[in-house]
Amino acid sequence: MPTKHEKTTLADCQSQQDHRRIRIDKVGVKDLRYPIIVRDKKTQEPRHTVAIVSLAVDLPEHFKGTHMSRFVEILNSCCPEMNIERIPILLRELQKKLHAEAAHLTLEFPYFIEKQAPVTGAKGLVDYHVKLEGSVYGNDIDVVLTVTVPVTTLCPCSKAISEYGAHNQRGYVTLAARFAGMLWIEDMISLIEASASAPIYSLLKRPDEKFVTEQAYENPVFVEDLVRNVAVRCNEHADITWYKVEAENMESIHNHSAYACVEKPAE
Amino acid sequence: MPTKHEKTTLADCQSQQDHRRIRIDKVGVKDLRYPIIVRDKKTQEPRHTVAIVSLAVDLPEHFKGTHMSRFVEILNSCCPEMNIERIPILLRELQKKLHAEAAHLTLEFPYFIEKQAPVTGAKGLVDYHVKLEGSVYGNDIDVVLTVTVPVTTLCPCSKAISEYGAHNQRGYVTLAARFAGMLWIEDMISLIEASASAPIYSLLKRPDEKFVTEQAYENPVFVEDLVRNVAVRCNEHADITWYKVEAENMESIHNHSAYACVEKPAE
Amino acid sequence: MPTKHEKTTLADCQSQQDHRRIRIDKVGVKDLRYPIIVRDKKTQEPRHTVAIVSLAVDLPEHFKGTHMSRFVEILNSCCPEMNIERIPILLRELQKKLHAEAAHLTLEFPYFIEKQAPVTGAKGLVDYHVKLEGSVYGNDIDVVLTVTVPVTTLCPCSKAISEYGAHNQRGYVTLAARFAGMLWIEDMISLIEASASAPIYSLLKRPDEKFVTEQAYENPVFVEDLVRNVAVRCNEHADITWYKVEAENMESIHNHSAYACVEKPAE
Amino acid sequence: MPTKHEKTTLADCQSQQDHRRIRIDKVGVKDLRYPIIVRDKKTQEPRHTVAIVSLAVDLPEHFKGTHMSRFVEILNSCCPEMNIERIPILLRELQKKLHAEAAHLTLEFPYFIEKQAPVTGAKGLVDYHVKLEGSVYGNDIDVVLTVTVPVTTLCPCSKAISEYGAHNQRGYVTLAARFAGMLWIEDMISLIEASASAPIYSLLKRPDEKFVTEQAYENPVFVEDLVRNVAVRCNEHADITWYKVEAENMESIHNHSAYACVEKPAE
Repeated sequence: MPTKHEKTTLADCQSQQDHRRIRIDKVGVKDLRYPIIVRDKKTQEPRHTVAIVSLAVDLPEHFKGTHMSRFVEILNSCCPEMNIERIPILLRELQKKLHAEAAHLTLEFPYFIEKQAPVTGAKGLVDYHVKLEGSVYGNDIDVVLTVTVPVTTLCPCSKAISEYGAHNQRGYVTLAARFAGMLWIEDMISLIEASASAPIYSLLKRPDEKFVTEQAYENPVFVEDLVRNVAVRCNEHADITWYKVEAENMESIHNHSAYACVEKPAE
Repeated sequence: MPTKHEKTTLADCQSQQDHRRIRIDKVGVKDLRYPIIVRDKKTQEPRHTVAIVSLAVDLPEHFKGTHMSRFVEILNSCCPEMNIERIPILLRELQKKLHAEAAHLTLEFPYFIEKQAPVTGAKGLVDYHVKLEGSVYGNDIDVVLTVTVPVTTLCPCSKAISEYGAHNQRGYVTLAARFAGMLWIEDMISLIEASASAPIYSLLKRPDEKFVTEQAYENPVFVEDLVRNVAVRCNEHADITWYKVEAENMESIHNHSAYACVEKPAE
Repeated sequence: MPTKHEKTTLADCQSQQDHRRIRIDKVGVKDLRYPIIVRDKKTQEPRHTVAIVSLAVDLPEHFKGTHMSRFVEILNSCCPEMNIERIPILLRELQKKLHAEAAHLTLEFPYFIEKQAPVTGAKGLVDYHVKLEGSVYGNDIDVVLTVTVPVTTLCPCSKAISEYGAHNQRGYVTLAARFAGMLWIEDMISLIEASASAPIYSLLKRPDEKFVTEQAYENPVFVEDLVRNVAVRCNEHADITWYKVEAENMESIHNHSAYACVEKPAE
Repeated sequence: MPTKHEKTTLADCQSQQDHRRIRIDKVGVKDLRYPIIVRDKKTQEPRHTVAIVSLAVDLPEHFKGTHMSRFVEILNSCCPEMNIERIPILLRELQKKLHAEAAHLTLEFPYFIEKQAPVTGAKGLVDYHVKLEGSVYGNDIDVVLTVTVPVTTLCPCSKAISEYGAHNQRGYVTLAARFAGMLWIEDMISLIEASASAPIYSLLKRPDEKFVTEQAYENPVFVEDLVRNVAVRCNEHADITWYKVEAENMESIHNHSAYACVEKPAE
């Protein structure tokens, strides 16, 4: 007679028949923290970071449940190295190992870039929030890359109507894009920073602070301007086939945000 | 000569012409905290709560900016009383005062219901997270009501394979619905609670704790079962025309969640 | 023979003897959401809001457990009306019903004040985060009132070194205080707002925006200045016997905060 | 004449005299995200992760401000390698470069450990939340290491009174400790996991799920038991000189947490 913890044949509830006739669109694991490695554009150096990962597949109506432990096994076998090219591999593994038609993944992580202060050249790491989303339906793979970039925004109205000064604040621009070929996180960040009043740095000495203060004052933008500036640049970008850009200003004169959004319809 | 704070004619930057030819889908205020009143189904008593509010309109390509202060003025004029019937009024005000074709609003708030413990009848308030979303495009109004309900879920697999016990945990079911006629928050909550292993209470005495422990053990559900049970009930509901149901289990044996989702295509 | 859900005598595990000889400092319920009513200083009107509540008592070393359901019963019996004077009542109830020597409570909630814009007088509600903390040890009651106030801060260095403009941002000042007599939330907010570059409003028309922009430019403060200005005012306040003031600026030129803190030792 | 962005002599506001006679306890940067490397106990392999960093110093009453950019420079010079032994080095640098008597740092980060499932030996990474806090006052250095560990907790009362089953849930135990010699994150985690109903894993196959379900049922613990079990183990630990242990159960039958806390007075 087996002792209670022995590996005897254990019931497989998940593989039982289901009779409710409801196909499940997505089932899987959510908000699993996982260390990953992403390569830097310029140096191709590995950048270590920590992702929040969600993985899911569809489930036909006649199966009672999916096999949750396989999601983690697949993640273990495909990580830590992670980048846009590896998303299809991970999606195909999910399809195959879970006998699914559709598979989905989301990875969100902070990504660091070394930036030089504009006058002194002092170096510091700035963190950007990145989201990688992938889906496969049969043979069709869909990938969306999203980057959230902190920027300085200075209010054109406040500047125009005031004798001196102008309210400004930290804003966050979130750009989601589909693309042909390759799209780099670094390029999306540059595109967004060029659309704001001024970029944000982690290390600024006094001459740099003077520079960015004046730069912001010379380049006032509403949230409306910010999303339009980004949209114009995305429209001109050869590889971006779809985008959605959102801007949110943590208003320095209010306790709420100003928000704007432009989405380009998928081709 | 006017002193600097006098009300002279101040430049209206927002009304300037814009030449980038980018129409803005949504622009407005986001994450404004606001006290509101929602009526209870049974008693029609006012229930006071605090909402996070976002309001937005579209902006034609030839205008530089919207007028942010009007959003708050419109909210002030329409609140604190808030319910599903008042959403179209608020949306029409946004259209009118901001000369917009489309308008959007989102209110999220905790909503409290007094529940009686199943054996002793002890009373306690349970909080549910509610989201009201409305959009108008020209004359077409679209409203979505979303409720997130905490429940107990007990794992069928763990129960089947173990000599005794079964892992269980708090789960959250989020049901979003479009509907003909009226849909009550209270009815959505009941529908969800009936689909789980057991409901959740804020006040349980020992006989109640015994009851819900055994109730959960007798009604094991995977996240897959949970969303299917809710989907079946929504399919049978006369007034629900569209729904999306998501379930998330804060797994007691893992540090991540199990997740499932079923969406009914809009008719 | 009783059916399984009948109210028979159920074991009271909590009252069992414990032999580990470890006294528990605090045991209770945490993060319970609850609707409460707080009175306004000026109008004495009831202000409805939603609190996050934690309640705890100490537990002598010889008892295995506390009785969790009583915390919720005591809250039900003392709420929804809640204010500083009612804290001792709630603490005494906890001591009595749970046979405890020490009892502790924390309530955190948004509190709304109607503010008038500085030039046009336009009215809007601004939300402040309030924390009420109370403890009783035997007969000694200790109460701490904490308010977090959003403000505008404009950087003195940026103003001094730049040809034009100055970076500014939303800052949050958190003031915790012990006091003799009565201390009003409204007075703490005024004290903090007077210490910043400018107050924050929810509704500003263009003449108001001009006013606060110039006001902030005329009153630059570092986080250091902000906490010192508040500290000086607290030192001069007849009823404040202890305080801790913290300021955090959501820097518009960085993706991190500037922070400062001053604490007055308890008398 | 210098152009506006040239490096001319720029006013040093921070070094100006202050006359408010208020010494500042802490001033610095807060919530800076930063990639760090922590060594694993067993393998001494570098573990890459991402920290939230706060750094501060005191400021004498006669100085107007600190020099914020130096905090980031010091962090850049001391990181990415980070561990308990390096905290004093970082604190001394803060004292020296900012001419301060006291200096403070806090690093919070997820830390990953590969765990093997109890029956099948399947491997998976589990994430733990770690906080490193250090302070120096003159020559006295104080370091506190805090680890938050997810565990399974099964309710003794629910088990005792129910015919079958017992409610269980994910709990979080937070142990903060001061220590003589060296204290490893891995050892604190083991100490906590041994005090709960069962440890948590990221990858469990069916035989493992059976094992942990039964293990939890055999080892019921209240939050009170959990903190006491940890306290007993800390009291027996040769190197732990002070500790504070908190347990929080995400109750599967309620929408709030059960909480307990024991603190050992510093020696």
